[in-house]
Amino acid sequence: MKLYDYPGVPNPRRLNIFMAEKGIDIPRVQVDLLKGEQLEPEFRAKSPNCDVPTLELDNGTCISQLNAVCRYLEAIHPEPPLYGSTPEEIGIIEMWNQICFTNGFQAVADLFRNGPDWFEGRALVGPHNYEKIPELVDRGRQRIMNFYGDMEQHLAEHKYIAGSAFSVADITALVTVDFAQWANVTAPDTHVNLKRWHTLVSERPSVRDNS
Amino acid sequence: MKLYDYPGVPNPRRLNIFMAEKGIDIPRVQVDLLKGEQLEPEFRAKSPNCDVPTLELDNGTCISQLNAVCRYLEAIHPEPPLYGSTPEEIGIIEMWNQICFTNGFQAVADLFRNGPDWFEGRALVGPHNYEKIPELVDRGRQRIMNFYGDMEQHLAEHKYIAGSAFSVADITALVTVDFAQWANVTAPDTHVNLKRWHTLVSERPSVRDNS
Repeated sequence: MKLYDYPGVPNPRRLNIFMAEKGIDIPRVQVDLLKGEQLEPEFRAKSPNCDVPTLELDNGTCISQLNAVCRYLEAIHPEPPLYGSTPEEIGIIEMWNQICFTNGFQAVADLFRNGPDWFEGRALVGPHNYEKIPELVDRGRQRIMNFYGDMEQHLAEHKYIAGSAFSVADITALVTVDFAQWANVTAPDTHVNLKRWHTLVSERPSVRDNS
Repeated sequence: MKLYDYPGVPNPRRLNIFMAEKGIDIPRVQVDLLKGEQLEPEFRAKSPNCDVPTLELDNGTCISQLNAVCRYLEAIHPEPPLYGSTPEEIGIIEMWNQICFTNGFQAVADLFRNGPDWFEGRALVGPHNYEKIPELVDRGRQRIMNFYGDMEQHLAEHKYIAGSAFSVADITALVTVDFAQWANVTAPDTHVNLKRWHTLVSERPSVRDNS
């Protein structure tokens, strides 16, 4: 196997934390996103949405999209389970992983990709170009603040995002919170439960080694 | 178990097709989205993102978010597998399910929810209100047309969205295409592979019974 990667950006960071939790390492090939290498035909043939991480198996099959790569790795390295073991855990973890991605991660992506500084003509990841919509910056900021508020309430009653055990939903939420800090959108100090959880998760070796 | 549902809208349709493929039936409770019942505190306590379908288990645990409900049902009724069986199938199906959701389904949702006719102040699903951004209507239309073009190319070489077998990715793509037709955004007749696939999938009893 080899992993097409670009260090330091959010989705590769999610995968690196996931792999560190499982003790997996895979040889890397760097795809330079700043130079637009992800849009070149050779890479698009491997990754239809032109994004990293993309995993190439030894038989040449390629798997992209963050949760698809992680689920493949979970299937071949089940321990520790990060998508749950019982039917109920599987459902609850998927629910929170989706909610954190949609309400948190995508909101931060909107904020970054539609702002003035980067991503000219590249408001969305994928093979097609789209112009920025500046209104998505303010809406992104509102959504992140609402996400923080919702997580504060939720974490008042739960140790981790999906309950009593660390899961892929914590990785999604943690990388969302840290990603939002790049844009100086931080949670108020009154969100004590969110901060308690953030400290707890940030102290894991998998996270410390991929900061 | 009971299923909080609202007939005729896209996510409940995805679940109905999924359950029909597995031969599952669950007693329903209607949540009237037009009256805003999904936003009432009693329902929000069951469904943190205030959406249907939401599944309530006999122990009171609730699972919402379409793929979370489906994955719970796949765990308790594994046959026929709609998220794959081998690690490679699991990865490939998740990849295409995500791509169809992000590039197709979310584009149609943007088009609908930001247009002039419905959803005043409710441009996004969830517990919080957001104003519409009219630019998302045109961008939604562009994205759907690009999604059709991408799928046309992909389906020239694949019988179903994720390869040789019907999967949850076909359900996501089919409901996306039909949902876009509500907005009169249809694929050109030259997209013969997309149309071949659409006819093939639409003839399944699970789809015919949930049209």
